[in-house]
Amino acid sequence: MKRINLGKGAEFDLIRQILAAGGRTEPSDAIRVGPGDDCAVVRGEGVALSVDMAVEGVHFRREWLEPEEIGYRAAAAALSDLAAMAASPLGILVALATPVDEPGDLARRIMEGAGAAAANLRAVLLGGDMTRTPGPVVVDVVVVGNTVRPVLRDGARPGDSLWVTGELGAAAAAVRSWTQGQQPEPAARLAYALPTPRVAEAGWLAAHNALDALLDISDGLAGDAGHMAAASGVRIILDEASIPVHPTASAVASGPDDALYLALAGGDDYELCFAAPPGAVERIRDRFMDTFDVALTRVGTVHEGSGVLLRDRTGAVNPLPYAGYDHFPAGDA
Amino acid sequence: MKRINLGKGAEFDLIRQILAAGGRTEPSDAIRVGPGDDCAVVRGEGVALSVDMAVEGVHFRREWLEPEEIGYRAAAAALSDLAAMAASPLGILVALATPVDEPGDLARRIMEGAGAAAANLRAVLLGGDMTRTPGPVVVDVVVVGNTVRPVLRDGARPGDSLWVTGELGAAAAAVRSWTQGQQPEPAARLAYALPTPRVAEAGWLAAHNALDALLDISDGLAGDAGHMAAASGVRIILDEASIPVHPTASAVASGPDDALYLALAGGDDYELCFAAPPGAVERIRDRFMDTFDVALTRVGTVHEGSGVLLRDRTGAVNPLPYAGYDHFPAGDA
Repeated sequence: MKRINLGKGAEFDLIRQILAAGGRTEPSDAIRVGPGDDCAVVRGEGVALSVDMAVEGVHFRREWLEPEEIGYRAAAAALSDLAAMAASPLGILVALATPVDEPGDLARRIMEGAGAAAANLRAVLLGGDMTRTPGPVVVDVVVVGNTVRPVLRDGARPGDSLWVTGELGAAAAAVRSWTQGQQPEPAARLAYALPTPRVAEAGWLAAHNALDALLDISDGLAGDAGHMAAASGVRIILDEASIPVHPTASAVASGPDDALYLALAGGDDYELCFAAPPGAVERIRDRFMDTFDVALTRVGTVHEGSGVLLRDRTGAVNPLPYAGYDHFPAGDA
Repeated sequence: MKRINLGKGAEFDLIRQILAAGGRTEPSDAIRVGPGDDCAVVRGEGVALSVDMAVEGVHFRREWLEPEEIGYRAAAAALSDLAAMAASPLGILVALATPVDEPGDLARRIMEGAGAAAANLRAVLLGGDMTRTPGPVVVDVVVVGNTVRPVLRDGARPGDSLWVTGELGAAAAAVRSWTQGQQPEPAARLAYALPTPRVAEAGWLAAHNALDALLDISDGLAGDAGHMAAASGVRIILDEASIPVHPTASAVASGPDDALYLALAGGDDYELCFAAPPGAVERIRDRFMDTFDVALTRVGTVHEGSGVLLRDRTGAVNPLPYAGYDHFPAGDA
């Protein structure tokens, strides 16, 4: 990877400091030109790209997180989009706006957090853009990954089973606690502040031919299952009794229905949701859980039709009473 | 290019509308997966990537521009980074935050403008992220291009000449007029609102072996020449008498020194600045200007040493009294 000498100016001083801090990760040969020029340049048969914007007051609050956590969380959420294609991270680019009245230290600390999230997945900081804003902090992370056979969300077939990694609702439990003026439980705070993109897990599942369709759960399982159903042209029926509700969601919820709501519609889980051929996961499930110490739970089934339904504990199947978070709800436009 | 069916929700309705509007551009074979999944996927020996963030109140004001122009300008500024590597645009990803109290129409119009800037260069909208913000509009554009031999900023050598395309200072003249409460001249407004990334020009110059080092002028020639000098480990001497000051900059300036300031430090020009071997450009200059109807001006020379100096009209060589715009000036951090 070629590095470019940066010009004068404090913005470049900041970037230099951050690059030095992030220098512990050996970049991939797929990176032809690293940070410092007008563009980074990578190569690959499949270069996966996604962008994810986090806005203070919408996606996070500065009262809730340290600056490093703001950066880490934004980058981890974006890197989760690579996991959602079973792609391997190469690098990130970070565009950051910090308030005019804040010291440059805030920008440096956010960038360091973003760099740490990337370094944890052996990805490097490929570039970025730092600016001032009269408004809230905005962190926009571009992820760049490598994929030979990307796993899309449109491959779910009737007869498939629907699976999720991990447990759902912990990040939503943290937000619930904060908005009620309480400190979240440590496990919930950790899930919100420092989510773990399931990159290794997705690669392993792809290598074991367990994936017909794949996405990551960012808006809540209810909404994201709906995206898979729409893309695949199928109906998905979720089983209420099998949803792996995180204990912190149950602890903070007003009752079982509310806990289910946090798990299905709370968002920010960054777990994987995938459709697998019948029997494909059962064969490898124990090895997966031994390898990653992450749960793997069958949460539903794929059928002909459209939309997402919920089978309740009595066996009755009904439309979902809620979907994932929508920034532009109907009637708004 | 594979397109993914999008799920329910008004955010996706908006994206659907925008994709339909942008559907007039035939995507490149290098795009394996288009918008709608977790990531776009492209392929290439050299995939050039850059990100550029535009913040309302910092980079533009809504009183100055129509929403479509805000999107067009943000995308064009970002696409200029591809020109700056002599790369060919493939697509863009746009992350957009619009105020909570604005109708969704604002987001749609900004995205349409960004899509138009891409379509003008035969690039497509590969993806994006739309969110609400309690603050100003933020448009973050990721550009994705194809480059076999990227032209970097570190190749300037002593003996080279420094050249620029077009004329400088028009966008800065527009900003000057607006901030003085006046309407800018139409040519200045156009340069600011709808800049033209010099993609074709850069490709042509690269094909004619005229480029030792290349960048685009986004922060002002003074600052960007400094970036080239730092990256290349050389000194650059600009010739005051040869700087192609745009007539609208001269018209709005308080005098010749102020006009020179707008041209050298005003920023937002998005012209090319490049170092060329001695004689390389003189041979092809007329053909370039005939082909593109864009000026090509020798503005300086490359020497051993470091930094950027200015040769004034008396022949005296002095340090530059100003540099490009710095969002994080010294002492700020």
